[in-house]
Amino acid sequence: MAPSEPRQTKFVLDESHIPRAWYNIVADLPVPPSPPLHPGTGQPIGPDDLAPLFPMALIGQEVSTEREIEIPEPVRDAYRLYRPSPLYRAHRLERALDTPAHIYYKYEGGSPSGSHKPNTAIAQAFFNKEQGVKRLATETGAGQWGSALAFAGAMFGLEVKVYMVRASYDQKPYRRILMETYGAEVVASPSLTTNYGRTVLAVTPDTPGSLGMAISEAVEDAATRDDTKYALGSVLNHVLLHQTVIGQEALEQMSMAGESPDIVIGCTGGGSNFAGLTFPFLGRNFRDGAKHRVIAAEPEAAPSLTRGVYAYDFGDTGKMTPLVKMYTLGSDFIPEPIHAGGLRYHGMSPLVSLLKQHDLIEARSVHQRSSFAAGVTFARAEGILPAPEPTHAIRVAIDEALAAKEAGESRVILFNLCGHGHFDLSAYEQYLAGTLEDYEYPLERVEAALAGLPQV
Amino acid sequence: MAPSEPRQTKFVLDESHIPRAWYNIVADLPVPPSPPLHPGTGQPIGPDDLAPLFPMALIGQEVSTEREIEIPEPVRDAYRLYRPSPLYRAHRLERALDTPAHIYYKYEGGSPSGSHKPNTAIAQAFFNKEQGVKRLATETGAGQWGSALAFAGAMFGLEVKVYMVRASYDQKPYRRILMETYGAEVVASPSLTTNYGRTVLAVTPDTPGSLGMAISEAVEDAATRDDTKYALGSVLNHVLLHQTVIGQEALEQMSMAGESPDIVIGCTGGGSNFAGLTFPFLGRNFRDGAKHRVIAAEPEAAPSLTRGVYAYDFGDTGKMTPLVKMYTLGSDFIPEPIHAGGLRYHGMSPLVSLLKQHDLIEARSVHQRSSFAAGVTFARAEGILPAPEPTHAIRVAIDEALAAKEAGESRVILFNLCGHGHFDLSAYEQYLAGTLEDYEYPLERVEAALAGLPQV
Repeated sequence: MAPSEPRQTKFVLDESHIPRAWYNIVADLPVPPSPPLHPGTGQPIGPDDLAPLFPMALIGQEVSTEREIEIPEPVRDAYRLYRPSPLYRAHRLERALDTPAHIYYKYEGGSPSGSHKPNTAIAQAFFNKEQGVKRLATETGAGQWGSALAFAGAMFGLEVKVYMVRASYDQKPYRRILMETYGAEVVASPSLTTNYGRTVLAVTPDTPGSLGMAISEAVEDAATRDDTKYALGSVLNHVLLHQTVIGQEALEQMSMAGESPDIVIGCTGGGSNFAGLTFPFLGRNFRDGAKHRVIAAEPEAAPSLTRGVYAYDFGDTGKMTPLVKMYTLGSDFIPEPIHAGGLRYHGMSPLVSLLKQHDLIEARSVHQRSSFAAGVTFARAEGILPAPEPTHAIRVAIDEALAAKEAGESRVILFNLCGHGHFDLSAYEQYLAGTLEDYEYPLERVEAALAGLPQV
Repeated sequence: MAPSEPRQTKFVLDESHIPRAWYNIVADLPVPPSPPLHPGTGQPIGPDDLAPLFPMALIGQEVSTEREIEIPEPVRDAYRLYRPSPLYRAHRLERALDTPAHIYYKYEGGSPSGSHKPNTAIAQAFFNKEQGVKRLATETGAGQWGSALAFAGAMFGLEVKVYMVRASYDQKPYRRILMETYGAEVVASPSLTTNYGRTVLAVTPDTPGSLGMAISEAVEDAATRDDTKYALGSVLNHVLLHQTVIGQEALEQMSMAGESPDIVIGCTGGGSNFAGLTFPFLGRNFRDGAKHRVIAAEPEAAPSLTRGVYAYDFGDTGKMTPLVKMYTLGSDFIPEPIHAGGLRYHGMSPLVSLLKQHDLIEARSVHQRSSFAAGVTFARAEGILPAPEPTHAIRVAIDEALAAKEAGESRVILFNLCGHGHFDLSAYEQYLAGTLEDYEYPLERVEAALAGLPQV
């Protein structure tokens, strides 16, 4: 850094600063996580139950209590293509809001596939490759995760098969073509290539599909082929673990800026980008008595942390996964079709849920019109067009900056800008045209879904 | 840099390394440029002829012979949002090609609007704002330039009106929505808002429009409103000047890598990204006796440098601009509809043309199928999805790397990856499906257009 630069905007690190270990928050939690349960027996599941789906290295990470897990050099080498990501001081947004708050954001949209998802896709591809796996099967909704895994597959020479929710397959052809350009095979889900898909199509040939159906197809694909494993883009402990490179870099970059965030914000769907930024800061809270306030920003259309219950539930609508203890709206609950497809999930990562249950983090829900308003304000001030998901974090960051102005305090705010919105412009068009819908909280549908919670 | 990093991929600079001056190659040219001529009188034009369209600061830069032109601090401050851009060593592409060549690329796609265009859009917006201009009018084809000027207008509080070629307006709605999200007003050209547009529509109401028509509308808009000036995204000396931040940073980054490029490559349409990377290297050739080979990669569908003539011609199809000395295919020539819309231009920047005429640079033309093949190879190796325009540079870089392999020589190759292809995926889909067309060189159409060259 040159001290002569009057108004530093960007805090960049060269690749020697890519973290050498992932940070495992389980080592520092004040209470231990509840184990996943077998849905048939109600007993905790073991590694063997997961072996058909995941390589042993990832299963080991899923249950590890070690604080640091070394990042293998081939993973760090692929991270060099886009990491460390930059951290920005949002001078222009501060000026637009006329706030004394200092606003910072970590930008993960500069990765090849445009979001934070490659942080775990690369790691998952590597550990599968190392175990001799030839092919990965996964599902994708809006396409961020499928794009990331297709990219990671190309980096490590793995075949990738993506079951893409039919509605998105038809509406977002660009995401599909991006995956195909990386060499992945993409089919609309439900498809004719699995028993589950054929069963669904026999009954409802015109179904638009759902993430739950696509998960079931990808899991069946992996479970029935010896050369294939399954990959998931959020929710699980090892996925959140891989994302902690974000927060570790941000800690170093905030030090470069000479500040420490009073408030750290991430949007939450399954929880992975939120965890990636905030877990290393929470670790400071737990170990060093730091006092970072941490806020999860979720959509009003899927408000698991703010309106759900903390209970054992299935991770998928098909009720095929183990039972996990989490905030949930009920696995039968299908959220309204908001544009932040990455946040349309009935549950929440067990680790994030545990933190909320013990009041170690806060949560706030946001309507989509208000999120897009924040996204447009951000784009006009800072230039970067945010994806719909992180506009929820931007909304909360702006609200906190305005609260700081009201209080006359110079608070330091940090949020995660987890992806760009280049494939989401039709949503911006609807917002600008005034035709974007907000959805009332569907109390009756959630109560119905919660009534069906499994009895454990 | 940590010397312990075994295989450095990315060479990053913090923002104190943003250049403090633009590099004006005119100061180092072995021969002086030919002046633009007034089409009526055939005499060199003066600053007053341009004053209705451009602020005086830019007119001064257009004719300057100073080697360095200071970058104002507000421009550097906006550059901080994305500059310095990273320079990459393409280890994975080298491995895929099994070449002893070292391949480097400068990546300009990380700017908010996704290409190198903001380097000049920001500068043009600043100098207009400084002169009290309230509003800018411009044209755009595929939308890279319009997006950049819309972004720059938002940064400096200027209104921006974009005349977008009707065919692109209908086919590329995402680019239009991006401009509108930045706050610009976008109309399909020809439009009903100008006399020229109304005249065209009265005769051909169903016309798909052309860049030439859109230029005429934007120029009329600027010339007839006191609060408005015109902005152009390539071709002119001051536009190329602003892009030289690219090459100046690359010089420093190649030094960090401990290498000097034997070959420097850029794609050429109007010439601005090519000039941005290569002019600072050519300056070393002229002043210090360096021996960088410099190659311009142009489309076979608009091969002005490789097949055109060096002559005075109009810059637009409407024959409203001054006459400039350049390589041209004739201002009546309309290139085939290749997907690299940014390279579909009948002429070439006068400065780039002069360099070619005196054998100070080389030129090579490339078919689009071959370009897209190079783009897909690149994406699968390096992750970044290139825009159609820089796939021409990638094609030439790969060919040079394979030639180095054939010769058994470890040559150092550097090219400019001037933008990402997130808005161009339908072209990739056509390539992957095998339906992308190559176009034969249209000899008769070019000969007809050249027969109409103005007599000076």
